[in-house]
Amino acid sequence: MAISSLLFHPSLSPLPTNHHHKTPTFKTSRLTPFNSTLKPSNNHTDTTPIPFPPSQTHKLSWLEELKQAFPSSAKDYFVDNNEAFQDLVDKRCVDNIRMLIVDTVQNAKAGHPGMALGMAEVGYMLYRHVMRYNPKNPNWFNRDRFVLSAGHGCLLQYVCLHLAGFQSIQIEDLQRLCKLGSRTPGHPENVMTDGIEVTTGPLGQGVANAVGLALAEAHLAGRFNKPDVIIVDHRTYCIMGDGCSMEGISHEAASLAAHWKLNKLTLIYDDNHNTIDGPTTLAVSEDISARFKALGWNTITVDNIHEDMKSFREALLSSFNEKEKPTFIRVKTLIGRLSGKEGTSKAHHGIFDEDDVKKMRQKVNWNDREAFHVICLVYREMKIQTDYGERLEKEWYSKLNYYQSKYPEGAGEFKVLLHGGLVPGWESSLPRWSVSDLVDATRGYSEKCLNQLSKVLPGLMGGSADLATSNKAYLKDYEDFSQPNSPWGRNVRYGVREHAMAGISNGIALHGSGLIPFAATFLIFSDYMKNSIRLSALSHAGVIYIMTHDSIGLGEDGPTHQPVEQLAGLRAVPRLLVLRPADGNETAGAYQVAVANRHIPSVIALSRQKVASHIEGTSANEVERGGYIVSDNCDNKDHLPEIILIGTGSELCICENSAKVLREEGRRVRVVSLVCWRLFDRQPKEYKENVLPSRVSKRVSVEAGSPIGWREYVGGEGSIIGVEDFGASGAYLDTFKKFGFTEENVTKFAKKLLSY
Amino acid sequence: MAISSLLFHPSLSPLPTNHHHKTPTFKTSRLTPFNSTLKPSNNHTDTTPIPFPPSQTHKLSWLEELKQAFPSSAKDYFVDNNEAFQDLVDKRCVDNIRMLIVDTVQNAKAGHPGMALGMAEVGYMLYRHVMRYNPKNPNWFNRDRFVLSAGHGCLLQYVCLHLAGFQSIQIEDLQRLCKLGSRTPGHPENVMTDGIEVTTGPLGQGVANAVGLALAEAHLAGRFNKPDVIIVDHRTYCIMGDGCSMEGISHEAASLAAHWKLNKLTLIYDDNHNTIDGPTTLAVSEDISARFKALGWNTITVDNIHEDMKSFREALLSSFNEKEKPTFIRVKTLIGRLSGKEGTSKAHHGIFDEDDVKKMRQKVNWNDREAFHVICLVYREMKIQTDYGERLEKEWYSKLNYYQSKYPEGAGEFKVLLHGGLVPGWESSLPRWSVSDLVDATRGYSEKCLNQLSKVLPGLMGGSADLATSNKAYLKDYEDFSQPNSPWGRNVRYGVREHAMAGISNGIALHGSGLIPFAATFLIFSDYMKNSIRLSALSHAGVIYIMTHDSIGLGEDGPTHQPVEQLAGLRAVPRLLVLRPADGNETAGAYQVAVANRHIPSVIALSRQKVASHIEGTSANEVERGGYIVSDNCDNKDHLPEIILIGTGSELCICENSAKVLREEGRRVRVVSLVCWRLFDRQPKEYKENVLPSRVSKRVSVEAGSPIGWREYVGGEGSIIGVEDFGASGAYLDTFKKFGFTEENVTKFAKKLLSY
Repeated sequence: MAISSLLFHPSLSPLPTNHHHKTPTFKTSRLTPFNSTLKPSNNHTDTTPIPFPPSQTHKLSWLEELKQAFPSSAKDYFVDNNEAFQDLVDKRCVDNIRMLIVDTVQNAKAGHPGMALGMAEVGYMLYRHVMRYNPKNPNWFNRDRFVLSAGHGCLLQYVCLHLAGFQSIQIEDLQRLCKLGSRTPGHPENVMTDGIEVTTGPLGQGVANAVGLALAEAHLAGRFNKPDVIIVDHRTYCIMGDGCSMEGISHEAASLAAHWKLNKLTLIYDDNHNTIDGPTTLAVSEDISARFKALGWNTITVDNIHEDMKSFREALLSSFNEKEKPTFIRVKTLIGRLSGKEGTSKAHHGIFDEDDVKKMRQKVNWNDREAFHVICLVYREMKIQTDYGERLEKEWYSKLNYYQSKYPEGAGEFKVLLHGGLVPGWESSLPRWSVSDLVDATRGYSEKCLNQLSKVLPGLMGGSADLATSNKAYLKDYEDFSQPNSPWGRNVRYGVREHAMAGISNGIALHGSGLIPFAATFLIFSDYMKNSIRLSALSHAGVIYIMTHDSIGLGEDGPTHQPVEQLAGLRAVPRLLVLRPADGNETAGAYQVAVANRHIPSVIALSRQKVASHIEGTSANEVERGGYIVSDNCDNKDHLPEIILIGTGSELCICENSAKVLREEGRRVRVVSLVCWRLFDRQPKEYKENVLPSRVSKRVSVEAGSPIGWREYVGGEGSIIGVEDFGASGAYLDTFKKFGFTEENVTKFAKKLLSY
Repeated sequence: MAISSLLFHPSLSPLPTNHHHKTPTFKTSRLTPFNSTLKPSNNHTDTTPIPFPPSQTHKLSWLEELKQAFPSSAKDYFVDNNEAFQDLVDKRCVDNIRMLIVDTVQNAKAGHPGMALGMAEVGYMLYRHVMRYNPKNPNWFNRDRFVLSAGHGCLLQYVCLHLAGFQSIQIEDLQRLCKLGSRTPGHPENVMTDGIEVTTGPLGQGVANAVGLALAEAHLAGRFNKPDVIIVDHRTYCIMGDGCSMEGISHEAASLAAHWKLNKLTLIYDDNHNTIDGPTTLAVSEDISARFKALGWNTITVDNIHEDMKSFREALLSSFNEKEKPTFIRVKTLIGRLSGKEGTSKAHHGIFDEDDVKKMRQKVNWNDREAFHVICLVYREMKIQTDYGERLEKEWYSKLNYYQSKYPEGAGEFKVLLHGGLVPGWESSLPRWSVSDLVDATRGYSEKCLNQLSKVLPGLMGGSADLATSNKAYLKDYEDFSQPNSPWGRNVRYGVREHAMAGISNGIALHGSGLIPFAATFLIFSDYMKNSIRLSALSHAGVIYIMTHDSIGLGEDGPTHQPVEQLAGLRAVPRLLVLRPADGNETAGAYQVAVANRHIPSVIALSRQKVASHIEGTSANEVERGGYIVSDNCDNKDHLPEIILIGTGSELCICENSAKVLREEGRRVRVVSLVCWRLFDRQPKEYKENVLPSRVSKRVSVEAGSPIGWREYVGGEGSIIGVEDFGASGAYLDTFKKFGFTEENVTKFAKKLLSY
């Protein structure tokens, strides 16, 4: 029997009998001591304790409440605390959840009540009877993870979080739904609200995130658990709607979940037969259970949750026995349950008319209770589960201490991970190159950096969407992640599934266990995972995107594979760091920046083709400034350069070569590497002025990509050498020549400016 | 029995017996008389006839060839032209295809031979025995469509096109594989090479394209065919590899194909168990046939094509009987067939060593024949099929004329479609608004434009990814496309499948039958379909992307749904027109541009929120210039404005309001609408100077999106009011205020500049 099922009820808690009763030394209430230079603000740092349950609105005792709610049918159950009695309790709690959802939507005049109402039983069951978590420490490492992939249903989660006692959601927060600055935005954001694991809303993303969370658990469990002490052991639950199920990313992720045998992952499909535009029959004919079965999932159907809530709990319990397959539970629900719009797409979003609200209240004997009323009963019920969670967390620290005494080496590594995965001095493992070293493509330098880092960063793990042999993002000293053979493996084989790769990487990063995920493919295929990359940035997931074949310089594969606009598009993503190193040392510098910024994703763009040479003036340490002077033949004090050549990546060499020619002709020429725009933009004004003095208006930028955005750096009089159309299939040098990326052409542009 | 199966063999050709023998009046060799202002150059316009078969290399008669190739086993067959004899012929032709593939790769020192070698039988069977096409008119309307979704296998297609007599691929073209400017680029491009239907390479895209082609056929068949005369009737074939099958887009498209009952679509899955990084077992465990069955497909497996080519043909034949389901044929192949790398991922790409080539030649009795040798036999065999195709085309014109005489109305509309779908004066159907009209969101104006256009443009069809109720992209006078009920319906219900929607739209556009597809969702979800949008631009597919909820102005749904960087990212896509209209008249102008440019995709970005007002100075007709003066209080001759406020979309109103305030204070202020950067960039220098005089350096741009790229228009001294971080959940006006999109803030920025 899986350990997880043993943990299902407090009485079954499998504490090792021989553990040591020391004071927990691992205790850490928020596992976010990461080194973040750009940490965005968040508004949930107020740690003033709030009394719980709050002393408001719930006037009746729980017994009175039940008697009033079920005046006839319940009377026989009030004596014995039996199962039927618990059913009534559960039903009443669900009624309250529904009423809170309705009140919240009516108050906000916005929101998506349909799914929240339909899935109220599911939400309640998870938070009350199934999930192991402690609202007093929402970031407890070994908690069960919950992902609401159908993020528009966040009302349900907000209400459950409140009832369970998370300080992040007070009644006042429900009353501020969708208001600027509230902790209850229109879709759930982990950076706004404790208790939310990942940011969802764009459909299907949450499924991939959940697979990432489950992978992280399986990996760490395989790596650290011992026969006599289990320190990593939680389940991951994900709610998916019809929209999520149609999105390709969910299919990709679901295929991987089965391939990886993530048996502790449970996907709960809200089968409500409706999407925004109408019944699902408009656009779906598939047999979804058969599809998941074909992918390798354990599939269960719950037919009648609104009348038989227990059937869902039983489905969950049965899934705990599954040793290999992830579980897909198809729960048939009525969208907008209770409302006049029940069962129709009209319930998907928008408020109810007041008559309808009145009727809903009558249906559950709520009548004229004031808005946002919470019955004592539901707080009491939730507290049973959260007290249990609190106890589990305490036991977990005891286990950790036992683990530490018996397995000090593993415990040391585990501790490093829990503190963010960075060990002091990790940067020094990064290689350096001198100008006399053999020249390679920057993807080649990347391979060396990544493999060196893997030796000192225990959390570094990741993989490719079937291009490891090309993008060279493979940790040679480690195995592939695989169950049951090698769950400890740190290479992940994503297959040709870029979108899921990125979504899963977000899940790994947001598991909060110090894992540092990298995700690698060709730069052109960043297109396939754009929304997930964006969500990395929005949700503070410090994924390292390794993107090779970064320009038309990849040559023969042609325009379908040659990125042109991708750098511009990615640079426009808020917060994201886009680094395009020019040689070995800059590649090392790019990794240094990417790894150090654990709350910010990075894209490292790397060449397929060999760069022309190592460049004498490049520097790994300067990369963090985003832009710096690579070479100059004047002193910047008495003399300014006549012209500045600005390059990135494989084109920086071309700038250097052109500068040499121009200097030989007596010109004062500076070469600047603008390896990361965003980092440069954030430097002090003086620094920027020093690198790109405003008095030097003659500037040429050289980058084999879209010219969009370069005007900012070359100024009104400068020239931009970029790619304005699609690339072309041809040998690298032919292609570069055709599009003007030669020393001769750069020199020509420079001379044209100089002759003005 | 489906008509298509009746057409499989010439002897079964179902010509209507009562057709008229007139000279064909529909004849048109290239259906591309579209109105394209930005038509990119292509290099296949040389129409000099080339002798076919070319008089080269094939020295032996076909009988001698066979005798030499099969000295023992074949001797019994040479007398009777029986089935076993045809098997030998087929086998020998496939040998030749393999040898050409090897020669081409070896010569180019580049390319992907693995899949091409493994699928040689499939390619041959399709081009020799199955597909109906006429190389003399590659664009014959009623041809079968073939899509190579696994585009890296294009060597196979190039070789087949050559052997079938397409002028676009001569032996010389094979010899120029992957050379700059050749018609044989590294991945197949429809704009480079006649005979290639769509541009593929990025995996999975072709599957969606094929679904689009099949949808176009089904739609037109439902709309135009009559019981006594069938004028639209072809099949669509698509080859998909393991990579395609893993990509989410193929899953989305496959789900839709079954939902739409596209029974004339055949997906041929190259089940070779290998991807770039190794065996598929690294990343796949699913039962793919069961998965397609669950989606609603007819599934067939061909186990042993290398030994029994006919089994594949039989599978195809059986699929012709399928009346409802699309067919999925799983063909088990050996990647790199014949080579030393056979059956391994090493065969995926790259050349062979010379020893291996020698061995391959020995295996097929090729020995020391010179490179690029083509046997007479294979040209002869292919010609049987292409002669058949030529005859079918002629018969089709006869049928068309019969159709025209009997159904003149339908024929008239069909003719309009065949000529590109635009009727003279279509633009005049677009509505206009005056300043006194009720104000709406631009998505509301879009709804009116789209519905007006649908009445005059018979080819306009499309749909939403389940957001029609929100993005208002629905043709109210028309039904939903649905089989068998309403195949003539012009609204397409894509479900929540953005990526497939865009890929399918590319297929519809490239069907070449005058259909004008639109694809609608929220602007944020352009992220989900970015690569398909890019391919629209690369492959000249004039899809109209209708993207509503185009800024943080969408409000409550929050940052997961608020686009910030999407405009910048899309503007960077080569050729793509990104239009962001400010009010009703500009929305009409945007549609005018989008529809007129049939070879260029457009994105029309539209607001969720009501715009502040109709603007007096906007103009539908000026939109095609990309940027123009909306208002000014000086005459542009003696006086230039002191400052220019530049806006797009919903922010243009804010500029207007700010200008009014400034003018009241005595300032000379111009307001410019920059509705489409790319169109403005292409205007004559004088025009641009007239709109944005270089002497006016005080400029403020106002757009609720990433500031990237705006420097080009505001100049070094100008100010950019944009969104540098993610948005926030809140009421529209609160959100706009927080990010500075108010008249007050714009006026503040303007005054700061003016006070310098």
